[in-house]
Amino acid sequence: MIHAGIVGSTGYGALELVRLLQFHPHIEITSLVSQSHEGEHIADMYPHMNGFTFEPFSSFQFETLKTVDVVFFATPAGIAKNDAPALIKAGVYVVDLSGDFRLQKSDYENWYQQTAAADEFLTEAEYGLPELNRDKLQEAALCSNPGCFATSALLGLLPAVNNSWINPDSVTVDGKTGLSGAGRTPSAKTHFSETNENTMPYKIGKHQHIPEIERYLMQSSEAEWTIQMSTHLIPMTRGLLCSMYAVQTDKSRTTEEWIDKYREFYRGHPFVRIHPYEQMPATKFVLGSNYCDIGIHVDQRTKRVAVFSALDNLMKGASGQAIQNANLMLGLEETCGLQQIPIYP
Amino acid sequence: MIHAGIVGSTGYGALELVRLLQFHPHIEITSLVSQSHEGEHIADMYPHMNGFTFEPFSSFQFETLKTVDVVFFATPAGIAKNDAPALIKAGVYVVDLSGDFRLQKSDYENWYQQTAAADEFLTEAEYGLPELNRDKLQEAALCSNPGCFATSALLGLLPAVNNSWINPDSVTVDGKTGLSGAGRTPSAKTHFSETNENTMPYKIGKHQHIPEIERYLMQSSEAEWTIQMSTHLIPMTRGLLCSMYAVQTDKSRTTEEWIDKYREFYRGHPFVRIHPYEQMPATKFVLGSNYCDIGIHVDQRTKRVAVFSALDNLMKGASGQAIQNANLMLGLEETCGLQQIPIYP
Amino acid sequence: MIHAGIVGSTGYGALELVRLLQFHPHIEITSLVSQSHEGEHIADMYPHMNGFTFEPFSSFQFETLKTVDVVFFATPAGIAKNDAPALIKAGVYVVDLSGDFRLQKSDYENWYQQTAAADEFLTEAEYGLPELNRDKLQEAALCSNPGCFATSALLGLLPAVNNSWINPDSVTVDGKTGLSGAGRTPSAKTHFSETNENTMPYKIGKHQHIPEIERYLMQSSEAEWTIQMSTHLIPMTRGLLCSMYAVQTDKSRTTEEWIDKYREFYRGHPFVRIHPYEQMPATKFVLGSNYCDIGIHVDQRTKRVAVFSALDNLMKGASGQAIQNANLMLGLEETCGLQQIPIYP
Amino acid sequence: MIHAGIVGSTGYGALELVRLLQFHPHIEITSLVSQSHEGEHIADMYPHMNGFTFEPFSSFQFETLKTVDVVFFATPAGIAKNDAPALIKAGVYVVDLSGDFRLQKSDYENWYQQTAAADEFLTEAEYGLPELNRDKLQEAALCSNPGCFATSALLGLLPAVNNSWINPDSVTVDGKTGLSGAGRTPSAKTHFSETNENTMPYKIGKHQHIPEIERYLMQSSEAEWTIQMSTHLIPMTRGLLCSMYAVQTDKSRTTEEWIDKYREFYRGHPFVRIHPYEQMPATKFVLGSNYCDIGIHVDQRTKRVAVFSALDNLMKGASGQAIQNANLMLGLEETCGLQQIPIYP
Repeated sequence: MIHAGIVGSTGYGALELVRLLQFHPHIEITSLVSQSHEGEHIADMYPHMNGFTFEPFSSFQFETLKTVDVVFFATPAGIAKNDAPALIKAGVYVVDLSGDFRLQKSDYENWYQQTAAADEFLTEAEYGLPELNRDKLQEAALCSNPGCFATSALLGLLPAVNNSWINPDSVTVDGKTGLSGAGRTPSAKTHFSETNENTMPYKIGKHQHIPEIERYLMQSSEAEWTIQMSTHLIPMTRGLLCSMYAVQTDKSRTTEEWIDKYREFYRGHPFVRIHPYEQMPATKFVLGSNYCDIGIHVDQRTKRVAVFSALDNLMKGASGQAIQNANLMLGLEETCGLQQIPIYP
Repeated sequence: MIHAGIVGSTGYGALELVRLLQFHPHIEITSLVSQSHEGEHIADMYPHMNGFTFEPFSSFQFETLKTVDVVFFATPAGIAKNDAPALIKAGVYVVDLSGDFRLQKSDYENWYQQTAAADEFLTEAEYGLPELNRDKLQEAALCSNPGCFATSALLGLLPAVNNSWINPDSVTVDGKTGLSGAGRTPSAKTHFSETNENTMPYKIGKHQHIPEIERYLMQSSEAEWTIQMSTHLIPMTRGLLCSMYAVQTDKSRTTEEWIDKYREFYRGHPFVRIHPYEQMPATKFVLGSNYCDIGIHVDQRTKRVAVFSALDNLMKGASGQAIQNANLMLGLEETCGLQQIPIYP
Repeated sequence: MIHAGIVGSTGYGALELVRLLQFHPHIEITSLVSQSHEGEHIADMYPHMNGFTFEPFSSFQFETLKTVDVVFFATPAGIAKNDAPALIKAGVYVVDLSGDFRLQKSDYENWYQQTAAADEFLTEAEYGLPELNRDKLQEAALCSNPGCFATSALLGLLPAVNNSWINPDSVTVDGKTGLSGAGRTPSAKTHFSETNENTMPYKIGKHQHIPEIERYLMQSSEAEWTIQMSTHLIPMTRGLLCSMYAVQTDKSRTTEEWIDKYREFYRGHPFVRIHPYEQMPATKFVLGSNYCDIGIHVDQRTKRVAVFSALDNLMKGASGQAIQNANLMLGLEETCGLQQIPIYP
Repeated sequence: MIHAGIVGSTGYGALELVRLLQFHPHIEITSLVSQSHEGEHIADMYPHMNGFTFEPFSSFQFETLKTVDVVFFATPAGIAKNDAPALIKAGVYVVDLSGDFRLQKSDYENWYQQTAAADEFLTEAEYGLPELNRDKLQEAALCSNPGCFATSALLGLLPAVNNSWINPDSVTVDGKTGLSGAGRTPSAKTHFSETNENTMPYKIGKHQHIPEIERYLMQSSEAEWTIQMSTHLIPMTRGLLCSMYAVQTDKSRTTEEWIDKYREFYRGHPFVRIHPYEQMPATKFVLGSNYCDIGIHVDQRTKRVAVFSALDNLMKGASGQAIQNANLMLGLEETCGLQQIPIYP
């Protein structure tokens, strides 16, 4: 068995890793790190884990973690950039679920408002979107796992961008997410009575996934991409949908041609499902699974294209994708432990 | 007292009219028309109405309705176009909450897939958006009450369109609505287990409010407006938000200039509230009230503008606005019976 | 106009008082007290209040408050017991929405874990359930407004208790409440991702409304009442339902006899609605209104009775009832400002 | 591999069987029967199934089904009683998820209002609650899978009943369920706008799980059990909680003694988790899993006991338990395919 450690073990990202790895055929968790809850047992904090036995949470100890095979950082931005490098040098595979290695230095410092990771590791980190980067991930030691909105938006835009089917200055991304994306720390913005029966824009003009999306669009195209993006909180726990709109470079293209092109692009990528003509994705169709579902519509009047891309923000948008990446890095089957049918209803 | 009749009395729009008119100081309901529930009492069908006494539902009878002062059609498309004309000729004021008089003949027939109302009444009908049309509504006998998405989108776009601050071919409208907008008839799309914890696009490319928005934008501008619009079902009962994106004609304009311009435009219009800098609207801030709240953000990177426009789809998006229009038509104070503070939380 | 002050003006109870009093024909708010937000304006904290103008929040100042006619304490337990007495001595009417005057000294100290109010005021305080106490409230200077569960349970049990139709040791109360009952302070228990799609018992054996219910049952009967009560959090914002079960003293009584008896008991009490045979109440039927809806079923097999009692926890369960009490104390019509039809849907 | 057929393949129970069996190591689905959708593919009706390939739905054909090893009836009451007998005679194992074999003849006819199954099969059917009946299920050919409320209530009461710790005439069961329990057919009662933000009692005095619970309590005790039970719809999709109250036979017993006794009773039963002292179960702690979580509290004042029993109505309350039963009948490990950690949050 491959041994895994999880750092930041009390957040939603880590809980999802624990849920998924419990039945992974080749990876087992040997170390759960939580600075704030050292010595406690996961089932004491989380009654849903009753009956599942793990070692108690430990503090972050390099000597212990360097002996495992792969470490997942399910921490807020600012932790992995400091703690991951030594592990990588010690030969441990690292998957970072935070934003620490996703952006170039100046962008990170602008959008995250803190000092960036060392250049060496920014360069070494491979962006963990297997549909873009599978080959490189199979050689990577450090994986920078994408943001939830970035995964949805990139998967919805990449085939169009890669084929120059849309104009680089015409893209609008309207993102909608459930509340689990905001994490486990209570706040007025996540208080049930304030968010239930409510839809509201948030972080307008400031969401840190914007530069991430632009960066990786530019890796797939020679054009300069600047997107207009807004994010909204939706009264549901899990689920994320990006509705994206763009001007076609060739206005004669039809919905059917788009669907064909997307299916061709994602052939061999098991977690992207392109919906058939006139069937739109919905967040509930991917709940609890690692799928990203994409639906496409070319408007007959405007000739613009609309692409809808849905995923579970804790799965393909975070922990599911982290395991997909670890599978690739460790030479395992990409789908290992990730083939759950969505929970429905 | 002014006497009112309501046709289509068992739907959500009618129930909201009943709730609001109960305490209207100058209008009282004297006739509730329901073909399918003739003879029944409203409180027998709707336990929330227990203790409120009305005449039983009657069938549609011209002889009775021609004696009231104002009739509200809270019916599906296709009823008012046939039944309203005789009432208008008999001197009754009519407010139609359906789409029967909102579009020109050919657009109606394309988007509603049925024969349009007689030309004479299409011409006579005044579009019931008081912030656009107040003077005309004060003279009108037939009011075509706007669609819920159209109200939100138009209020969010009109000041920009009227001042030529955005490019006519650059507008994207991403609409999000609670489920009450889908009415009272059960269906798979409105079944709790299918819609709860779910966000999904619907009627993509086909929503009948699209031509309605374009028509009234064109009344406020000499340009040709073609908008890109998508609508989404959100797991909440009431509330509607349009997030709108456009290219500025002058990229140097700031968020503050936009806010000032919008405040100037809506001065003297009591139901539009322009949010201050960096404060975004949310559907919960207008719940149960007749307000439309608007927030604006000019993106520093793209120079495009984002406008967010929130309302309660059954209030400013339907029945609240219908009463606002009736007040104007009947020479009453515009805000009569409509000054409720939003329900919070 | 009668002048009112509200202490604790930033909580949900106070916001509901503000919403209701805005259109009260005889009471106007002249003072909003908030220690923690002194100097701020209510609309700056609460965007739903945009456009409604009030004096900024002030700190608690006796000299100011003694000049108003009535003060509402919408504060946590522990404030009114200290601050209300001087106001009462100064001739100000006081309605306390907290639990400070609801229990006898020893019960208060046991269940609230703090020192009780002075005996003199515990004795003077009139319990603000008008359906039990209307005459006394019309003479009262200090009103102890009931708890939300206590209101629902007492209204559901009083006719049976008063007529000795149920056995005193046989009562089970299963309470279910929306999250707004837990107030505005964020916590893990009220975090959207934890409470949405979740039903959970809380404060089992410890809810402070238990001794309150028993105390006022005993005022209506010579028997000793000890109830079994549990409370549950339900994923909704507003609404409270008590499902109550008891053994009948005379097992031959029918559902119809119960309904008749309850209707007789509540004749002349405008805010209690007894549902007809086989129609059960639901929290949505009272949303945003001051009604308490009651449905009754005698089980043909067990001969036990089930009583279901629904209200809006912020209305009849808190602020609506507080205004009902103030109306009585001030010699106004009991229903003044409170006749809203429930919001539906 | 063991071959399975599912009859009634388009309902929520069948979809959950499909989800679970997809990764069952020993059972594979070879036949999906749906009379109303013959010839269609499951992924065409259910987009969440995109990418999972099954034979198209077939009509019910005895010749085909008699060749599989086990057939699950996920049909409404009234189907299995007619169609299962021939399969059993043909040597096929049958698990019926409907109520057709749960009650004795007269009770079935009273509560289900239709003719009962043939006596021979009512007698042969083994009640599929493994915690009560494991040995018999290992020998059974026909399993009558319990109702969702019955599973929760019985698991919460059996240890007390079996040990005579509560009085037989003192039990109150207050049941709360999410909407998926009401199935997939749209109706006013399951329409989002009516049920969201709503808690309502339903089927009061008429729920067909009442006689089922009593029947199996009586198999575990010599006493005559008559329970008082109410059921409520809660605005969530999945999840069921029974809150149960009873008078202790020995009032000196403590919460700790109860917890010990329950842990002893369920030793060796992997899907029942008894919560520690003062920790209550919640429906979210079992979501998507086959667990039933139980918490117990002895009230210090009333000396009565409260037992809270939570499960996922589609898992341990239906399809999860059906697979648990099939595992036992087929000689497999009881937990096979069912060890998922609950989805959280």
